[in-house]
Amino acid sequence: MLKLYYSPGSCALASRIALEEADAPYELVRLDFSKSEQRGADYLKINPKGRVPALSTDRGVLTENPAILAYIAQSFPAAKLAPLDDAFAFGQVQAFNAYLAATVHVAHAHGPRGSRWADDPAAIAEMKRKVPETVAACFELIEEALPQGGWVMGGQYTICDPYLFTIASWLESDGVDVTRFPKVLDHRNRMAERPAVKKAQAI
Amino acid sequence: MLKLYYSPGSCALASRIALEEADAPYELVRLDFSKSEQRGADYLKINPKGRVPALSTDRGVLTENPAILAYIAQSFPAAKLAPLDDAFAFGQVQAFNAYLAATVHVAHAHGPRGSRWADDPAAIAEMKRKVPETVAACFELIEEALPQGGWVMGGQYTICDPYLFTIASWLESDGVDVTRFPKVLDHRNRMAERPAVKKAQAI
Ligand SMILES: N[C@@H](CCC(=O)N[C@@H](CS)C(=O)NCC(=O)O)C(=O)O
Ligand SMILES: N[C@@H](CCC(=O)N[C@@H](CS)C(=O)NCC(=O)O)C(=O)O
Repeated sequence: MLKLYYSPGSCALASRIALEEADAPYELVRLDFSKSEQRGADYLKINPKGRVPALSTDRGVLTENPAILAYIAQSFPAAKLAPLDDAFAFGQVQAFNAYLAATVHVAHAHGPRGSRWADDPAAIAEMKRKVPETVAACFELIEEALPQGGWVMGGQYTICDPYLFTIASWLESDGVDVTRFPKVLDHRNRMAERPAVKKAQAI
Repeated sequence: MLKLYYSPGSCALASRIALEEADAPYELVRLDFSKSEQRGADYLKINPKGRVPALSTDRGVLTENPAILAYIAQSFPAAKLAPLDDAFAFGQVQAFNAYLAATVHVAHAHGPRGSRWADDPAAIAEMKRKVPETVAACFELIEEALPQGGWVMGGQYTICDPYLFTIASWLESDGVDVTRFPKVLDHRNRMAERPAVKKAQAI
């Protein structure tokens, strides 16, 4: 049985939505960040990086949203969550998700997690100050690339959609004026109506 | 014909090595960062993010190392650069590469590119100061996970190897004492002997 290690409000929501969309059988293991459970000895045996999501499978543990999302798409092909037989189209999906992980999520993280990259409180405050600007710059590119209506990759819903939804759900707390991004907002609203998303957001 | 947009000394080396390993026909387009060519109007039409690598194909452009590397592995299956028929093993490859892109490369980038996340020179200097510590923390996890001898994924050389090689080649300039990481160092030395790596490093 698949086991998803997650924490409410975290980026693990993307992987959880994909599991729901795939109708995959899975268990949830909830970590309490307020008790630093992600850095406890037990969890570090699962994921030495001390982060969520982690997906435990009968072959071992996978980490990192882009990898877990692709694994779900490949393991449950009937759900058609990625263009599995087209290297270029699959590359576009992976490029979008890699951008979310390596640039957009990272821009966001300079708000709540500045202490990863600096110790001086003034530097941490300065990073936090710039978050609305850096996150908005990422979403300008996303807004530009997003099709009108439909999904991130066009007509077909893919593993890009839950991941974009998850990171776009942080825009208000990142201090970004979401009305600047009508296509992102419309995407977020349509995602929120999907049964898989409603289930994944229930505690 | 594939066209790789790259800059010497950049992370695009990973994708270039993979193209050489796959014996793929490709052209190189070199961008001069000292002239900010990556932010010029011509290149922004190729990659609006203003970064390298970008791989132009007859279907369109792909960006982001983890996506380009997987595309090369899938497009040139004879080179056996990834376990293409095993969703879990492929997930492990993608998880390693996603970690390099989203955490290790990002830790490094706080040295040369701190202005992405802060404007105040004191904050940028403080980020730079912490780079040796954050990069070393990443490489502690990598060293721990790396097999003795062999390649990142064990016996089979994969798209993880050129990417690790590329980022590990920055360790000295990141101010990290490389002797703390003997397996990483041995991997780097064995990579440097490969004909594909020698060809990719030639200008
Ligand atoms: N690159 C990773 C990032 C994972 C990550 O940073 N997760 C956050 C939650 S959004 C976390 O676990 N933070 C806990 C911490 O930093 O202690 C991914 O995409 O899965
Ligand atoms: N997440 C991207 C990162 C690409 C990236 O940051 N590339 C650097 C070179 S190592 C770059 O183009 N920097 C130019 C700039 O920041 O202006 C990837 O993995 O491909």
